[in-house]
Amino acid sequence: MRASPQPTGKPLLDAALGHKQKTPPVWIMRQAGRYLPEYREVRAKAGSFLDLCYTPTLACEVTLQPLRRFDLDAAILFSDILVIPDALGQPVRFAQGEGPVLEPLDAKSVASLSPEKALDHLTPVLETLERIKAALAQEKTLIGFCGAPWTVATYMLGGKGSSDQAAARLFALNEPVAFAALIDILVEVSARYLVAQLRAGADMVQIFESWALNLDETAFRNYVIEPNRRLVARVRELVPDAPITGFPRGAAGMLAEYAEKTGVNVLGLDYATPLAFASQTLPQTLTVQGNLDPLRLVAGGAQMESRAREIVAAFADRPHIFNLGHGIVPQTPIAHVSDLLKVIKG
Amino acid sequence: MRASPQPTGKPLLDAALGHKQKTPPVWIMRQAGRYLPEYREVRAKAGSFLDLCYTPTLACEVTLQPLRRFDLDAAILFSDILVIPDALGQPVRFAQGEGPVLEPLDAKSVASLSPEKALDHLTPVLETLERIKAALAQEKTLIGFCGAPWTVATYMLGGKGSSDQAAARLFALNEPVAFAALIDILVEVSARYLVAQLRAGADMVQIFESWALNLDETAFRNYVIEPNRRLVARVRELVPDAPITGFPRGAAGMLAEYAEKTGVNVLGLDYATPLAFASQTLPQTLTVQGNLDPLRLVAGGAQMESRAREIVAAFADRPHIFNLGHGIVPQTPIAHVSDLLKVIKG
Repeated sequence: MRASPQPTGKPLLDAALGHKQKTPPVWIMRQAGRYLPEYREVRAKAGSFLDLCYTPTLACEVTLQPLRRFDLDAAILFSDILVIPDALGQPVRFAQGEGPVLEPLDAKSVASLSPEKALDHLTPVLETLERIKAALAQEKTLIGFCGAPWTVATYMLGGKGSSDQAAARLFALNEPVAFAALIDILVEVSARYLVAQLRAGADMVQIFESWALNLDETAFRNYVIEPNRRLVARVRELVPDAPITGFPRGAAGMLAEYAEKTGVNVLGLDYATPLAFASQTLPQTLTVQGNLDPLRLVAGGAQMESRAREIVAAFADRPHIFNLGHGIVPQTPIAHVSDLLKVIKG
Repeated sequence: MRASPQPTGKPLLDAALGHKQKTPPVWIMRQAGRYLPEYREVRAKAGSFLDLCYTPTLACEVTLQPLRRFDLDAAILFSDILVIPDALGQPVRFAQGEGPVLEPLDAKSVASLSPEKALDHLTPVLETLERIKAALAQEKTLIGFCGAPWTVATYMLGGKGSSDQAAARLFALNEPVAFAALIDILVEVSARYLVAQLRAGADMVQIFESWALNLDETAFRNYVIEPNRRLVARVRELVPDAPITGFPRGAAGMLAEYAEKTGVNVLGLDYATPLAFASQTLPQTLTVQGNLDPLRLVAGGAQMESRAREIVAAFADRPHIFNLGHGIVPQTPIAHVSDLLKVIKG
């Protein structure tokens, strides 16, 4: 845990820095997304999904859209965790209805990645952040992000998203030297990318470890905790006291160890994390973020409202940022988002 | 927890009944399966995958195959968790390379299921158990099984396996009455099926809750714990002291509550369950089963052996049945299975 700097007047950033707020500040994972008609309109005008990520005017526009509709406390950069492999010279394609597709790396091709040029490739993302920052109200927090090294590696090694990450897990066991080299590259490039985001206007950054599930504890320590720890430390060498959120989806019994060893300011909780388990396992001073099931937001009504209230009550004694426990899904009715915000903010 | 009956002389059953063994007895999830050439040979002769499940001579043969190669302490009935929807009148097809495919139920079609005829449909499975029992050495344990109500419901409602079970989760939120009716049917039919298995020769039964992950705690209590509790209680109404294993894959922070409330004799641990977490959270008298990552068995060598030793050491102070933390995968080298058994049994 880090010493808390003085409050900044941005409620969400302040909660991240350890200052408990009267009502929990809120943002919603994938808040700029397909459930919004205005997003779908911009998306249809852009070429590919990555074109949208690399076009600062459009990426800035979709980032700001949800804040025009809802009283959210943060904007999160519109981008994707796979801009990193793309920037390293492993092209990423978003196939219609299929998700991202990459040509999987083998042990030899790890050496042919080009980390030295990666940051140049990401210049448009930094320009997007500058534009958002200039347009954003003073009390709103601007969040930057990247994928965690293991999660990004699962796509680079498996060629696509996978519910059990078998390709990457076998690669790590069978090719430990090449795997370690890949993680080293991802830690260093991701650190420089997050530092550049903080310098371009991000108030804080989140590390998405979307595939922390399906690892045994030895693998979890080696693939998740240690690279996240190094990434956090490297960012703070260059930007001391950088506020950082870690979101290890599926960490389950390893949550407390992840929080302690990585030194993140905020721990993102997936929706499968039981509230009492989190309360009892995590240090009282740690800020937590989460964790409503996005499908409760789709279904709406009393079950959604009562669960949201349970979450707020469970974390009333510590700094808490309200969020979903996974990304909002396209079929979510917009009215349910307003209903949720009423429950949280009164 | 139940009072432990006297030892039976079957090491695996005895461990299940709470009698700690000098070395942990072993079986392997999907031990009768595609990694064995003799299995692939029988499979090629049978028609569909369900034909194999419903042909007692062939199902008995593939059940016994792994025990001819390896010093395993149990045979597990060769069958599939989806014989239940099939028996209820919702046909199941196993498409090549795709896994099971069903025509998804809607709220109305739940009422058209035929639970009264289900057990007749499953007669061949009971004949398979009688054949296995007659052929099995005295000291080997015969394990029967079924899918847990929620897990089976995810296939019946979603039409196929799904990493996030979104269709079933939304159905449960949007159609609570039909969902409760479906779970009631599954609890009752599964209980009668397990009882029939125990009467046909199974020494113990396992309830596979393969999709316990991705549920928030409210959903986990309503969809997983409560139906499992009712299923266990109903089986024991008819077969008092029936030894029952529960395997709630992905239960994570809900593990201890699952074990306590369902009253299972044995708790199956997936490979993501940290050893110290399990030791500290679960009652010392509870038998645990697991939990090596199947991909460590594919990769083999020192990393597999050291992890297997860690698992044995972690559970040395309680009754423990060694197993993988998920099913063995087709590309597993057979020699690695022998290596693993040497590590466990010396």
